Amino acid sequence: MSNPLPAGSVIGILGGGQLGRMLSVAAARLGYRTHIFEPSANPPAADVAHAVTTASYDDLDALDRFVASVDVVTYEFENIPTSALDALEARRPIHPNRRALSISQDRLIEKAFLRDIGLQTAPYAAVDDEIDLAEAIEEIGVPAILKTRRLGYDGKGQARLASRDDAETALAAMSGAASILEGFVEFSHEVSVIAARGASGEVAAFDPGENVHEGGILRTTTVPARLTAAQRTDAVLIAGKILNALDYVGVMGVELFVTAKGLIVNEIAPRVHNSGHWTQNGCAIDQFEQHVRAVAGWPLGDGSRHSDVVMENLIGDDIDRIPAIAGEGNAAIHLYGKSEARPGRKMGHVNRIVAAR
Amino acid sequence: MSNPLPAGSVIGILGGGQLGRMLSVAAARLGYRTHIFEPSANPPAADVAHAVTTASYDDLDALDRFVASVDVVTYEFENIPTSALDALEARRPIHPNRRALSISQDRLIEKAFLRDIGLQTAPYAAVDDEIDLAEAIEEIGVPAILKTRRLGYDGKGQARLASRDDAETALAAMSGAASILEGFVEFSHEVSVIAARGASGEVAAFDPGENVHEGGILRTTTVPARLTAAQRTDAVLIAGKILNALDYVGVMGVELFVTAKGLIVNEIAPRVHNSGHWTQNGCAIDQFEQHVRAVAGWPLGDGSRHSDVVMENLIGDDIDRIPAIAGEGNAAIHLYGKSEARPGRKMGHVNRIVAAR
Repeated sequence: MSNPLPAGSVIGILGGGQLGRMLSVAAARLGYRTHIFEPSANPPAADVAHAVTTASYDDLDALDRFVASVDVVTYEFENIPTSALDALEARRPIHPNRRALSISQDRLIEKAFLRDIGLQTAPYAAVDDEIDLAEAIEEIGVPAILKTRRLGYDGKGQARLASRDDAETALAAMSGAASILEGFVEFSHEVSVIAARGASGEVAAFDPGENVHEGGILRTTTVPARLTAAQRTDAVLIAGKILNALDYVGVMGVELFVTAKGLIVNEIAPRVHNSGHWTQNGCAIDQFEQHVRAVAGWPLGDGSRHSDVVMENLIGDDIDRIPAIAGEGNAAIHLYGKSEARPGRKMGHVNRIVAAR
Repeated sequence: MSNPLPAGSVIGILGGGQLGRMLSVAAARLGYRTHIFEPSANPPAADVAHAVTTASYDDLDALDRFVASVDVVTYEFENIPTSALDALEARRPIHPNRRALSISQDRLIEKAFLRDIGLQTAPYAAVDDEIDLAEAIEEIGVPAILKTRRLGYDGKGQARLASRDDAETALAAMSGAASILEGFVEFSHEVSVIAARGASGEVAAFDPGENVHEGGILRTTTVPARLTAAQRTDAVLIAGKILNALDYVGVMGVELFVTAKGLIVNEIAPRVHNSGHWTQNGCAIDQFEQHVRAVAGWPLGDGSRHSDVVMENLIGDDIDRIPAIAGEGNAAIHLYGKSEARPGRKMGHVNRIVAAR
């Protein structure tokens, strides 16, 4: 702990959703205060934060006041406008850094980066127009999936191509945005590694979890994942390679496809990750504290897992199952304080310890 | 879950120290907001609470506004002035109830209550003057300890009598306050049971922990405690008996002396308890959530322990050991956000998982 952030310092968090909420609690546990910057009113993180700024990311005055009140800046989501980052970075350190952010904001750049450092990804090609798309289909084949390069806030901007005939419709669905065609990967299951890199360059990873999605939304994460010892090692080495290549500080989520040809990187998220929520009840030091430790210059937790856990997301009206889940007697419930249960909205999650190690 | 408090409801907490802080976090986890009432500025709980009222307990206007903004009232310490409770109870339910509070506020009434329900306590006698004291010494013998009946906020109001000659000095130390003489109990060690009773009368207990004190302050709690199976059962039955007799709703800490003649009740605390902090890293549902569950009308957690834990309090300049403890890699650190490390002041605690079960 060469130069940790002094006790009582303020950690600024961009985004006040459930990830910001759980980061706030972890920050408090280590003696820090949090200041949340979030455009929408009464966000989940507000209930457990020291201070909240309700303002848009293009409100430079608000950003200015915010950054003056904090000692370091971090974030809970990757789609932060560049202009906001410019305003903040001039005044305080931002962790994870801009490079990690810019890579994860663009699917094409992300895939190129991963290939550059020697990792496997799905086959892909940039698509800006009909000619690109025709060439990409020629190269990659179908089925494939066309996605906008930059993420939308609403999970839109994706179109499946079952055959070449779908090309025109798929391209239209991109509304002219720069896109990427990704080939399908034959995988048996998806796992993710939640890994962290500290200010001094140390890396620590939690045990990989196995993810099940439904309708594009994470449904459950089960730890341990079905992996051979070699795959497990590989998964952690892949995460470490990414973190080191980016000179990264903080927690990252790395989604991997398990295939006959090895582990293929699906996506990286430069933040705490839904598939790491199991650590709250499986580890003494969870992913949220791990992130705060990294950002605040503490030594990292070692990633030890004391229990096997199944994490289940509570999505939309899953929240109506809370009375039954509460009655289980040993299910750890984590609600986000959202008042309205819209379809697809993450309302909370449950961690069930299935065995002590 | 017949009539649980609706999601988004506000739990009012009297007292903004570390217990209020950890209760706030647990309340948020179950989808509630907290409003802290605390006389001193910037209390530990403020960093993670939805709202804070800074006012004295005799400020009836402030109490009035506070109680109007909450759905239920609970507390983190037992020395709440009666006038404040009167003002609150007229408007909202208070859990645990007034009877539990009034019993725990007075050592004489507490001991009489415990004897009444058939439990063992140290020998004791009421002492209001020299004559009482002489008679009490006659009955109980020395060594003994003279204590004011009502607790002081500063842990004062106790005087040890090694021999009859100490009587005058001891009585003077009480400054005329109504007192109680307690005989010494020969015990091998102290354990405590953290137990809870829900709104529907169900009782659940965590496994007993073994406490070590230094200079009158809890130093460590180790779980499991050294107890025979019969003692363990007994400890839980004692706690259940107390909770049921009081028609109690919430978490209670029950301190027990382990003696050759069985378990003797030392003290009860009608709130979450320092000796229950281990549950944060030993159980999926900890004592703070258990208390919120009871107060909010949820079913209780079953008290399952997934790991053996040693809890160590960080007192005064113990806080300087944080860099070393952080370097352990798997020690769960819980700091309270207090800026000044005065001697005897609880600054935080560490939970170390020593074995998974």
